[in-house]
Amino acid sequence: MRVDGRHYRSIWLDSDGWSVAAIDQRRLPHEFVVAKITTCEEAALAISGMLVRGAPLIGATAAFGMALAMRDDRSDPGLDRAYEMLIATRPTAINLKWALDTMSTMLRRLAPSERRDAAYARAVDIAGEDVTINQGIASHGLALIEAASRKKPGEPVNVLTHCNAGWLATVDWGTATAPIYLAHDKGIPIHVWVDETRPRNQGASLTAWELGHHGVAHTVIPDNTGGHLMQHGMVDLAIVGTDRVAANGDVCNKIGTYLKALAAHDNGVPFYVALPSPTIDFAVGEGRQIPIEQRSAQEVTDMTGRTADGRIETVRIVPPGSPVANYGFDVTPARLVSGLITERGVLQANGAALAAAFPERVKQANY
Amino acid sequence: MRVDGRHYRSIWLDSDGWSVAAIDQRRLPHEFVVAKITTCEEAALAISGMLVRGAPLIGATAAFGMALAMRDDRSDPGLDRAYEMLIATRPTAINLKWALDTMSTMLRRLAPSERRDAAYARAVDIAGEDVTINQGIASHGLALIEAASRKKPGEPVNVLTHCNAGWLATVDWGTATAPIYLAHDKGIPIHVWVDETRPRNQGASLTAWELGHHGVAHTVIPDNTGGHLMQHGMVDLAIVGTDRVAANGDVCNKIGTYLKALAAHDNGVPFYVALPSPTIDFAVGEGRQIPIEQRSAQEVTDMTGRTADGRIETVRIVPPGSPVANYGFDVTPARLVSGLITERGVLQANGAALAAAFPERVKQANY
Repeated sequence: MRVDGRHYRSIWLDSDGWSVAAIDQRRLPHEFVVAKITTCEEAALAISGMLVRGAPLIGATAAFGMALAMRDDRSDPGLDRAYEMLIATRPTAINLKWALDTMSTMLRRLAPSERRDAAYARAVDIAGEDVTINQGIASHGLALIEAASRKKPGEPVNVLTHCNAGWLATVDWGTATAPIYLAHDKGIPIHVWVDETRPRNQGASLTAWELGHHGVAHTVIPDNTGGHLMQHGMVDLAIVGTDRVAANGDVCNKIGTYLKALAAHDNGVPFYVALPSPTIDFAVGEGRQIPIEQRSAQEVTDMTGRTADGRIETVRIVPPGSPVANYGFDVTPARLVSGLITERGVLQANGAALAAAFPERVKQANY
Repeated sequence: MRVDGRHYRSIWLDSDGWSVAAIDQRRLPHEFVVAKITTCEEAALAISGMLVRGAPLIGATAAFGMALAMRDDRSDPGLDRAYEMLIATRPTAINLKWALDTMSTMLRRLAPSERRDAAYARAVDIAGEDVTINQGIASHGLALIEAASRKKPGEPVNVLTHCNAGWLATVDWGTATAPIYLAHDKGIPIHVWVDETRPRNQGASLTAWELGHHGVAHTVIPDNTGGHLMQHGMVDLAIVGTDRVAANGDVCNKIGTYLKALAAHDNGVPFYVALPSPTIDFAVGEGRQIPIEQRSAQEVTDMTGRTADGRIETVRIVPPGSPVANYGFDVTPARLVSGLITERGVLQANGAALAAAFPERVKQANY
C-alpha cells in the first residue's frame, strides 16, 4: 500500500538479491525506517523484538530467515538449528509454524547444494502468495461492505477494527483491512473506527498510520469505546484479524478482541474475522488449547511518543511498585463470530465449514 | 486512606477555616500535590479540569464551591450564578446536581446574612456524609467478598475494577474500593485486577497508586485483558463505581464498563456496582437518557509520564492527522448487573428495588 505516495510492502528481498528489507514497526508512527536483515539470527530477533509483527508477516519473515540460514549452513543440522531458532520466537501465531514447516519439508528433500536457491525462491513465493491470498480476502470481504453500503446509500460504512490486521501485519493489503482498502479504492464511502489496542498501541501506531497514508477516513478510539459505539448504531460491522483459528472456528487474536465480539453480539453488529488459510490450525481442536503469550510488563508501564518539540521519549505511566500483567491474546468463541473471511470465501465459523473449504489442510494436519 | 503512612481525605476544609484543600489528581501518580481552592471559580475549574474527579468527590467539591461563593456574594442572584457556574462543569455525574440542589434549596430559605456559615456547615456535612455512606457500602460489600473467600479458603479473592472508584473518587474509602479496603483491613486475602482505564488512565494512575499506598495486593492490566481473565477463572467478582444510575437500574460509568459487564455475564462472574444514593437519578427513566460527555482528543493522543531520568514529559502517541473520539462514559444495562451495593444494602438492579430502598428520593424526584 502507499506511504507518502509510494508503494511499499512490509518486507521484501533487497536489490542485492540476498538481504531482506523490512519496515521497522517499532518506530512507527514516529519514524519511518527500513531495517536490513542479513542473518537467520537477525530474522529471529526481528520477530521476537517485534520489528515485524502480525501473523502473516511473521510467517513470511521466518521463511526469509530460513533462506538466510541456507547461505551459512545448508546441512540437515543447519536446517534444524534455523528451524529451532525461528520457531522459538513467538508462541501464538500459527503462520510461523506453517511457514517453517513448509520451508523445511521442501528443503529437506533437496541436496544441500540446492537448498539456498530453493529457499530464496520459496520465501519469495510465500511472500507473494500472502499478497494473492489477501487480495482474495479483499474481494470476498468487499461483498459484506457493499451490502452494508446499500443499506445506507451515500453514507459511509462504519467498520470497527482491533489491533493491526493491516498491510503492515502481512506482506501487503492486510487481512481485516484488505476489503476496506478495496472498498475505498472502488469509491465506496467507508470510515474505520480504529481501536488504540493497548498495550502496544498497534491500532493507533500502525493501523491509523497506514489508513492515513492510504487516504482512508478513520478515527482512533480507546479500546473501551467500541461497546458504546455499537449500542448507538455507530458501527455497521466489525472486521478483525487473527493469529490462529482452531479447527472448530474459535479465534485467537490480540487481547481485547473477545470483548468487542461480545459487544457486537449484544447489539446485533456482524463480527467478521479475516484470515489467510495458513492461520488455521487444524491440529488444535478448540481455542482453549492455543498458547497465550505473556509479554513484558514494560509494554504496559512505559509509553513512547513524540514531545511537542519533536523529541522521541519513553515515559513510565504506572506507579513504581505496581505489578503488571500483559497477556498478548485472547480467544473469541466461534459462537460470537458471524463469519470467517478467507481467500476461498466467507465461511461459517465452525469445523465443518473450515474443513470443507480447506480439505488439503485437514489431510496435512492428520499426518 | 493512607498515603506514606499518613491518613488523608481527597478534599478538606483547610486549617484557616475557609479555604479548601484537595489532592491534585492530575499530577498522580507522578507527584503528590495538595491544591488550594479559594473561590467558586477555582472550584468549578478544579472539577472541569479534573483536578478532582469521581462522582461523589465532584458533588463534595461543588458543595464547597457554593460555600466559597457565599463569602463573596450571598444574594439570590449570587446563589444563582454560583449554581450555574458549577452545574456547567461536567454533564454526566449526577452527584454534582444533587449536591448543588441540596445546597441551594437549603440556602435559599435562609436570610443572606446566614448563608455563608450555613453553606460551610452543609458542605462539611456533605463531605462527612459521603464518608459515612461509603463505610455503609464497605460493610454491605464485605459480605460479598467474604462469601467469595469462603469458596477458596486461604487463597486471595480476585476482584476486578475499572477506572477509579477509590477513595480519591470520593471523600474517603471510595465506593467500589470501600469493601476491598475493609476486607484487607480485616485480614481477608484479596487481590485487585486494576483496569488501566484509557484514555486518562485513572486505574493505573489513581487506583493502583491508592491501593499500593494502602498495601492492597493488585495488578495493573490493559483494559483489553479482563475478558481473558474471566474466561480463565481468574476473577471472582467485579466491582465498579458509577457516575449515575437511572431509575430502572441502568448504570452509567466510565467508558469500557459495559464491555467488562458483558464479559462477566458471559463467564458467570458476579458484576457489582457500588454507589452512594446521591448517584441515583430517579428523574431519568433509563440509561439511554443520560448525557454522555465527550472530552478532548488530547486525552487520547497525548500521554504524560516520567522518563527514566526522572523528568515529567508529555508525548504524543497517535499519528498527526488521525482524528480521535473520546466518549467519557457508557451505559451498562441493568440486566448485566448482579447487584447494586448501596449504603442501605445490596439491591437488585431494577426500579422496584431502588424505589423501595430510597422512597424519600423517589418522592423528591416526583416534585
